[in-house]
Amino acid sequence: AWVRCGILVVSDRCYRREAVDESGPCLAQLLRSTKKFTTDILPVECVEDDREKITAAVLKFTDTIGVDLLITSGGTGFGVRDCTPEAVGPILDRQAHGMMAAINQQTYPNSIMSRGLCGTRKNTLIVNFPGSPKACSECFAIIEPKISHIIDLLRNSVTKIAKAHH
Amino acid sequence: AWVRCGILVVSDRCYRREAVDESGPCLAQLLRSTKKFTTDILPVECVEDDREKITAAVLKFTDTIGVDLLITSGGTGFGVRDCTPEAVGPILDRQAHGMMAAINQQTYPNSIMSRGLCGTRKNTLIVNFPGSPKACSECFAIIEPKISHIIDLLRNSVTKIAKAHH
Amino acid sequence: AWVRCGILVVSDRCYRREAVDESGPCLAQLLRSTKKFTTDILPVECVEDDREKITAAVLKFTDTIGVDLLITSGGTGFGVRDCTPEAVGPILDRQAHGMMAAINQQTYPNSIMSRGLCGTRKNTLIVNFPGSPKACSECFAIIEPKISHIIDLLRNSVTKIAKAHH
Ligand code: NA
Repeated sequence: AWVRCGILVVSDRCYRREAVDESGPCLAQLLRSTKKFTTDILPVECVEDDREKITAAVLKFTDTIGVDLLITSGGTGFGVRDCTPEAVGPILDRQAHGMMAAINQQTYPNSIMSRGLCGTRKNTLIVNFPGSPKACSECFAIIEPKISHIIDLLRNSVTKIAKAHH
Repeated sequence: AWVRCGILVVSDRCYRREAVDESGPCLAQLLRSTKKFTTDILPVECVEDDREKITAAVLKFTDTIGVDLLITSGGTGFGVRDCTPEAVGPILDRQAHGMMAAINQQTYPNSIMSRGLCGTRKNTLIVNFPGSPKACSECFAIIEPKISHIIDLLRNSVTKIAKAHH
Repeated sequence: AWVRCGILVVSDRCYRREAVDESGPCLAQLLRSTKKFTTDILPVECVEDDREKITAAVLKFTDTIGVDLLITSGGTGFGVRDCTPEAVGPILDRQAHGMMAAINQQTYPNSIMSRGLCGTRKNTLIVNFPGSPKACSECFAIIEPKISHIIDLLRNSVTKIAKAHH
């Protein structure tokens, strides 16, 4: 099955064209070249570090378009404007604590600087990655092997419960 | 001291008798055979993957019966009906982030698929394990050495504060 | 740049002078002797294990004094009165999940017993450490290399976004 993917870059400077974003193209390339699932990748969107604008952009991907996977990059640190987790957290139906823990565990000690969340809203898996392409690559590699199975579960297209308690 | 234990299986299919649960008996056996503490184990209960019904079942164990330890199995994944953490989180008095982190850390990469919580309500320690007996065994082994001490603290039967700041 | 530091000891027994706190002096010594940044350390304060009193004490450090770093010790465990995370969580502007995960990861299996949070309020970084001096030393060493950079970001005194997406 094709995985429909959204990429949302969160950055004041990229939004204002004072810097060129490299994380969005990096994530698009990672998704295009994965061997684990086939992808349909929407054009990268960019939003400034503003809580309401990030929330609105995420809702467009989850509720209007209905992507399977939404990756955000940026806004996860300690900068005074960094607020991606605060924009995403309140609209998650379910937090994915174990996925977040896995990303933190595998990226230690850089993980100390990151406050990103993972979770689901409707049938979309949402993950917050840091803004650097290197961090995006590392984080993607950690969750890449599980994405296809999670998307299947979110689509209710596998009979996972049949096996769960055995 | 005896640890009074509740086991709550969360599964649509087991609840409807379309599948036979193995996680409940597995957990009962783990509790019966532990060398770390002595147990008084209530009969395994089963509830469907419904947020309100899970919450009500947990409250029966914590507020009506008042068990020391409640282990839930199932409903912690990405299936569309999986909602054990969402049913348990709002009724926790205190989350046990470090215990949850330890379980995730020690079960990586399976941890990526699990969203389970740990915490306390009144004097009960509550932990969410995945639905497979294998995962239940692994998760139990991680927290097993600490359960007796935590139960003592929750019962206020140790003078832990005397030592804490030294 | 000098880092202005507050230390808040949370302990019924130390507050009532039934025990002498060692965690506060230990943290002051760690801050004084770090090579990673220069510090201005306020006198250690002590508060009992009472949610409202802890919250008020934290707000004095963050909103009235405006310290850069506030370290709390104690009240993070499973004792019936332990409520430091519950007192601090609701007044955090932003949780620092990755920092908390790092502390838990590096202090396993002791981490199982700790429920401490990390996060920011206004321009203050707040971290909850356990009450034992040994745990305080271990936790401090984990975050020590990153504190100076985080304080710079919270003061908005670095142009971090210039590099983030590259
Ligand atoms: Na971890």
